[in-house]
Amino acid sequence: MRTSIATVSLSGSLTEKLTAASRAGFDGVEIFENDLLASPLTPEEIRARCADLGLTIDLYQPMRDVEAVPDDVFDRNLRRARHKFDLMRRLGADTVLVCSSVAPQAVDDDALAAGQLSRLADAAEEFGVRVAYEALAWGRHVSTYDHAWRIVEAAGHPALGTCLDSFHILSRGSEPKDLEGIADIPGEKIFFLQLADAPLLAMDVLQWSRHYRCFPGQGGFDVSGLVRHVLHTGYSGPLSLEVFNDVFRQSEAAPTAVDAHRSLLVLQETVGLATPPAPVVPTGVAFAELVTPDADPVAALLGALGFARSARHRSKPVDLWQQGEARLLVNTGPAVRRDGTQLAAIGLESPDPAGAARRAEALLAPVLPRRRAAEDAPLDAVAAPDGTELFFCATDRTELPNWRTDFEDVEHTEQAPGVTRIDHLALTQPWHHFDEATLFHRSVLGLDAQDSVDVADPYGLMRSRAVTNADGSVRIALTVGAAPTDDTVHAQHIALATGDVVAAARRFRAAGGLLLPIPANYYDDLAARFELTDSELETYRELGILYDRDAHGEFRHCYTRTVGRVFFELVQRDGYRGYGAQNAPVRLAAQHSVKGLTGG
Amino acid sequence: MRTSIATVSLSGSLTEKLTAASRAGFDGVEIFENDLLASPLTPEEIRARCADLGLTIDLYQPMRDVEAVPDDVFDRNLRRARHKFDLMRRLGADTVLVCSSVAPQAVDDDALAAGQLSRLADAAEEFGVRVAYEALAWGRHVSTYDHAWRIVEAAGHPALGTCLDSFHILSRGSEPKDLEGIADIPGEKIFFLQLADAPLLAMDVLQWSRHYRCFPGQGGFDVSGLVRHVLHTGYSGPLSLEVFNDVFRQSEAAPTAVDAHRSLLVLQETVGLATPPAPVVPTGVAFAELVTPDADPVAALLGALGFARSARHRSKPVDLWQQGEARLLVNTGPAVRRDGTQLAAIGLESPDPAGAARRAEALLAPVLPRRRAAEDAPLDAVAAPDGTELFFCATDRTELPNWRTDFEDVEHTEQAPGVTRIDHLALTQPWHHFDEATLFHRSVLGLDAQDSVDVADPYGLMRSRAVTNADGSVRIALTVGAAPTDDTVHAQHIALATGDVVAAARRFRAAGGLLLPIPANYYDDLAARFELTDSELETYRELGILYDRDAHGEFRHCYTRTVGRVFFELVQRDGYRGYGAQNAPVRLAAQHSVKGLTGG
Repeated sequence: MRTSIATVSLSGSLTEKLTAASRAGFDGVEIFENDLLASPLTPEEIRARCADLGLTIDLYQPMRDVEAVPDDVFDRNLRRARHKFDLMRRLGADTVLVCSSVAPQAVDDDALAAGQLSRLADAAEEFGVRVAYEALAWGRHVSTYDHAWRIVEAAGHPALGTCLDSFHILSRGSEPKDLEGIADIPGEKIFFLQLADAPLLAMDVLQWSRHYRCFPGQGGFDVSGLVRHVLHTGYSGPLSLEVFNDVFRQSEAAPTAVDAHRSLLVLQETVGLATPPAPVVPTGVAFAELVTPDADPVAALLGALGFARSARHRSKPVDLWQQGEARLLVNTGPAVRRDGTQLAAIGLESPDPAGAARRAEALLAPVLPRRRAAEDAPLDAVAAPDGTELFFCATDRTELPNWRTDFEDVEHTEQAPGVTRIDHLALTQPWHHFDEATLFHRSVLGLDAQDSVDVADPYGLMRSRAVTNADGSVRIALTVGAAPTDDTVHAQHIALATGDVVAAARRFRAAGGLLLPIPANYYDDLAARFELTDSELETYRELGILYDRDAHGEFRHCYTRTVGRVFFELVQRDGYRGYGAQNAPVRLAAQHSVKGLTGG
Repeated sequence: MRTSIATVSLSGSLTEKLTAASRAGFDGVEIFENDLLASPLTPEEIRARCADLGLTIDLYQPMRDVEAVPDDVFDRNLRRARHKFDLMRRLGADTVLVCSSVAPQAVDDDALAAGQLSRLADAAEEFGVRVAYEALAWGRHVSTYDHAWRIVEAAGHPALGTCLDSFHILSRGSEPKDLEGIADIPGEKIFFLQLADAPLLAMDVLQWSRHYRCFPGQGGFDVSGLVRHVLHTGYSGPLSLEVFNDVFRQSEAAPTAVDAHRSLLVLQETVGLATPPAPVVPTGVAFAELVTPDADPVAALLGALGFARSARHRSKPVDLWQQGEARLLVNTGPAVRRDGTQLAAIGLESPDPAGAARRAEALLAPVLPRRRAAEDAPLDAVAAPDGTELFFCATDRTELPNWRTDFEDVEHTEQAPGVTRIDHLALTQPWHHFDEATLFHRSVLGLDAQDSVDVADPYGLMRSRAVTNADGSVRIALTVGAAPTDDTVHAQHIALATGDVVAAARRFRAAGGLLLPIPANYYDDLAARFELTDSELETYRELGILYDRDAHGEFRHCYTRTVGRVFFELVQRDGYRGYGAQNAPVRLAAQHSVKGLTGG
């Protein structure tokens, strides 16, 4: 099905918006009137620019407060409309959006509305234009799609149809019965379908619509359910995104347009209009890769955590450190980052690495160039929205290329592992791009998103949301910082699973490792909240171990100091399903207070 | 009356919060539990720190989900509470906040609630603590202040009282009848009064409370009306601010604490508890001062606008340019700014400059040091929140020191003025500090705030709000940019009043001035919206004049190119009361497209 996007959904000048929409793969655009007014291009030049970019102009919008008004007011409205129809002729746009009136002088008279819309459609026809009438959720007298359709039906004019907008419909209710009326509309009378999602907020619907819309799949609406209803009518126009969002307004247009188009691809897959390669859900974490300009502090930290340097890449300056099933690559290659040590890549264990890569590519994930020696195993990789490289790989599986064979074992001493595997990875997302990141991980990797939680940091409020596979063997916590520039403390981190966090913490400390000190007040509070034994409390207090409990079990965890932008967590998860969000404010405050004590 | 602030209202570590509160002049604090848990200081050390800073600990908060629960649950709650009472004893805090329960297991049984709160108060008494019970607006069974009071009254325990919170009360309704019940509460049973304002948003009350509270006078609540009711009961505790706000969480604590304390000073003045020096409303704009590292482009621009260099400061490198009653100072002194030309100061014509300065100082405006020669007229100045210097001055009034006498006339040619006066000044505010700036200008200068409007810029949404005196002779438009870092285009500007904008624009252009070009599409839209004559439209199109109309009259305006961070607007205001917000998106887009064409 054809895809389209309203220019108001993207930032920049009109030409920047058109370029971004075209590059992201959209077939057409809705031209938002203010974008045209502010453009130095004439309508004819805009038409030519769109044609050059392979974009059709699917809608000109909006025309407001036209119908159900006294005659003299309607005459003025018609005069104004004729100007716009002439403009549309020059622009080559054949459909105009008319929103239901919010004007105080509008009267509650469907017959009057139908009559005036019919006269408007007469005028439109002279210019080769058709009118799509839409109910705004806050329209003065017409605020539901079925009411708008009754008026269009009563008018019975060939150049008059209706426009359905998922926000205006779903913000008023999404029970199955609320959508049944769509089946009553003949598909050819649905002149246009505008799509937007939104988080489920109990707030004024106008403000909600103007500031908080988002792309389908980023919010809480059942947009695909609505689309199914509309397709059932025989609607054959474009699926078009109309999203008013304060964040998108200030973000670069190009990546926003890609996120937008991805959301429509996923939507089309959901409703059966498209069949991109199926998701290949990862079955584990093969490795996490750190890049560092200075391997020594990293090696010291990993050694203290019980990791052994077990292999070295045949052609690159990359070491493999291993403990149990936890594998960490330490890369000191030429891609040394200014920011110091960081988590640069994740190897996801995949049942079908090539298939996973095909899906990612189909969903517009940036495919990374393969920089490898001829003898290396082929590794497919894409970039996540935060720049982290995601490798789709297989570890020691005979039927698949094995990344592990690119590494040559080095002599090392195996210990009884304290750490058994990587429990989860926490990645800091670019400021204000949280919902896009969630949609990426859900749609591209096939992971499930858990509930989002707010976490109070001393210097601002953070959000955190985990994406996981079904058995919890892949868990990625996406977090977003409180302020645009603050990424020094909200570092990435790697949580390592252990069956005995007390023993692991002691061993780490005995080996010279530094644990994050936790304030004594925290333990007084633990004593108030839980009936822990004195000796248990004393142990936690001594080591800086944090404690939480949910309906499924207990959680004990502690943190290392930060190296560069990375720190480690040791976690003992006895059935517990969360990530210790309750303890995060204390951990964050402690990290602020020791900030800068270690290098890297 | 004593003033207090909850630590959750400020950003940073607990010690940073305490220092900021003390420096801003607060008498006490409410300690938010999480701030204590995250602090490395022991309760005794916190107590000592507060004492050193001259702060009392007026409240420990919050205790949640205590009452109206099954006996075994209450026993556990009591155990937890005893831990906290003991902590409060060490802290030296004698009042604890207990919020009405939101727990699913809480039952709707006032007698049970009263009985359990009474038992809680028994335990509290043993530790010298009293319990202030507050109704959360979203409490499960107790959500109104009068309901909470009925329970406290029924319990009849000397160590149990109520806490009133302006947000929880006013978010549920602020009709006079809603507040009548306050008179039924004996003042000595109101153990605490928490104050917060909030913008009037129709949204989920919990989210509204957690993210959008603000300081009294910054929002839409009648906080002072509520305080009057409470004072009438004989309440003698502190006025305490408890504000949860996403912006304050990430702002520096020190200026936030000053804004907070100013809001309480103004509140106390409003309710008659304090009498700071009365506001002295400015009666005009004496001058606007530009600082520039290079006077030539500024001089060229002012010359083309019809200004003449009419005087020079006796001891400083400052020129006075004048036209009609519009006076501009051009300062090339040592305070050359890295950012190039900018609007650095405003001279406000004041009936009582010294009185205006006394008020500003009493309301915690930063008083600027006087850097002047012995013979200069004394000029009092304070810094506005955006750093603009505000001078309180008198021009050619015999009874007052005259700033004009510091300037020596230079030979110049008077023209028939095209510009008669400064119509308004537009100042870009630091990102996200819009409501504080509005409160500053209202309270310190005695100006009235107009409605706030959203303005769409191609790269984000801006907000704008004017503060004015009664006759419109002082108008300052406060604007805030869309993104934290974007201040290049959203420059300051000086709007100059003229009786004939067409003539003024032509004269400017004939003198070599560059007007901001406006796209042709804008004029096609004007033709559709208004019945202007073809020749009128043609003139506007040729010169780049924008047009608007409101119920009071017409508005015609045009813009110069930007020099440094400043541009000029020529405005012809024929009864119109606004600022052309309708045209602002087109102007902003045009400025983006010519950005960087001129230097400065």
